[in-house]
Amino acid sequence: MLPKGNFPEKVHLNGKIVSAEDAKISVFDRGFLFGDGIYEVMVQLENGIFYKKAHLDRLQDNLNKIGINYNVDEIDRQLKPLLKASNLNESSCLIYIQVTRGTAPRKHSYPKDVPASIMMYALPYALPAINPKHMKAILEPDFRWHRCDIKSISLLGNIMANEAAMNADTDEAALVRNGMISEGSHTNIFFVKNGTVITHPADEHILNGITRMIVLKLCNDLKIPVIERPVAENEIEHMDEAFFTGTTTQVASIAQLGDHVFYTNNQVGDVTKKLQGSFAQLREKDTANSIL
Amino acid sequence: MLPKGNFPEKVHLNGKIVSAEDAKISVFDRGFLFGDGIYEVMVQLENGIFYKKAHLDRLQDNLNKIGINYNVDEIDRQLKPLLKASNLNESSCLIYIQVTRGTAPRKHSYPKDVPASIMMYALPYALPAINPKHMKAILEPDFRWHRCDIKSISLLGNIMANEAAMNADTDEAALVRNGMISEGSHTNIFFVKNGTVITHPADEHILNGITRMIVLKLCNDLKIPVIERPVAENEIEHMDEAFFTGTTTQVASIAQLGDHVFYTNNQVGDVTKKLQGSFAQLREKDTANSIL
Repeated sequence: MLPKGNFPEKVHLNGKIVSAEDAKISVFDRGFLFGDGIYEVMVQLENGIFYKKAHLDRLQDNLNKIGINYNVDEIDRQLKPLLKASNLNESSCLIYIQVTRGTAPRKHSYPKDVPASIMMYALPYALPAINPKHMKAILEPDFRWHRCDIKSISLLGNIMANEAAMNADTDEAALVRNGMISEGSHTNIFFVKNGTVITHPADEHILNGITRMIVLKLCNDLKIPVIERPVAENEIEHMDEAFFTGTTTQVASIAQLGDHVFYTNNQVGDVTKKLQGSFAQLREKDTANSIL
Repeated sequence: MLPKGNFPEKVHLNGKIVSAEDAKISVFDRGFLFGDGIYEVMVQLENGIFYKKAHLDRLQDNLNKIGINYNVDEIDRQLKPLLKASNLNESSCLIYIQVTRGTAPRKHSYPKDVPASIMMYALPYALPAINPKHMKAILEPDFRWHRCDIKSISLLGNIMANEAAMNADTDEAALVRNGMISEGSHTNIFFVKNGTVITHPADEHILNGITRMIVLKLCNDLKIPVIERPVAENEIEHMDEAFFTGTTTQVASIAQLGDHVFYTNNQVGDVTKKLQGSFAQLREKDTANSIL
């Protein structure tokens, strides 16, 4: 029996659509034993799945990185039947996808000739045009691994940081590695200084978010200069603005980061506001096959 | 259907004993979604479960570290029924235990009032008195997180390193972080120089193995001097001996580590051999409740 909570109606599990209650995998699935899998989160908005191709391409890229032999074209084919079975084909919803290395006797090295496990579901999910939050975030040590470019389900480091943020009654934790701010527990982070947007380069210490890439493209379109470099913890107080990005976070203004208060009232910085506006316009188009 | 392979006959899953085939958990279990859980591996030998209390105490300690509210006394009570159902109460076997934070709608922060999920099984497993292997190991970058003291199921970093070792046709990967050797992908590593045993201190960069602690105790008993410090990659060639330790690895002599060949024939170093002999004697006693 599932506990009470906001579970989806239907789950796609290895080619079948079942109820959330019946969506069960073997305890020998390597997702359960080793966190050995990759995930994606997408949203369907008024004009289709937002940057669907970009998300599925990243999923394929990540599966290739860790040697899970699976072609995401099959997921693309299965999305419509899932949305239909979930009564969400025309509705705003969140789509969660997880691919693991499959079921095998527990052994660290990769099993041969075992099919990957696929799990996905869609949940009703409304996203405002612009995220109205004035986010507060704590600073937490970034003790995660050094392959954060892989969108892996081995997420214990991320959830520990997120839990710390919730316990501090804030919205997010910004992670600090060797004195430099890398990203949030499930977001990317941007700063603005003298009109220039600054964000951590997409190396092995951050996940190169789809929204991160969209924002960089918008900066280019809007002729806002960008520098990709890590921002040091002790630079925060000298920054003019800061914002988080993410698929469900969109572009969210940061009101307070650690001890530094950017705004005490419900202000949003000029550059953040401009990017939020341009970002909101993107959903008026069909971006499902757009390239970043 | 499970694929072919060495699966256990029975699995303990949340208080029930079921067949391996029927051992299925919700896809919303946080073990599957986030790698949010802790595991243990123990062996039952001729005189009972080898250092059972030490393993269960560590499991409790790890659960406490990540805030999973569960008392391992219940696992201790359920071990006998599991071994009986598995027809292994008097047999040598490997016991695998996994505790996850339980089932809840996917959200990074910890759910409240959700019971932990417990999965364990026993598999027939013969261990020789002394590991006869002359291990070859590669050196791999240690890109894992900085809380390796937590025996978490978020193991993608470990399995990637282990896979690299298998692909190189070796037995293990020794991990190198900032030029220093930390541990193996699922073992601890020790060196010997001029009669002194050297091993990485039990800080946040290694898992403090039960066998590691046993070996340190044996060194004390045998008056073998010990220094707990990391060994640099470029020191390997100056070391006299090296060995891996682990619950199923026991004390395993290393014949080759990276490019450095310790022995071309089937030699085992004096200190390694002495520790292997003393370690073998421990199983002649009932160590289930021994303290380390």
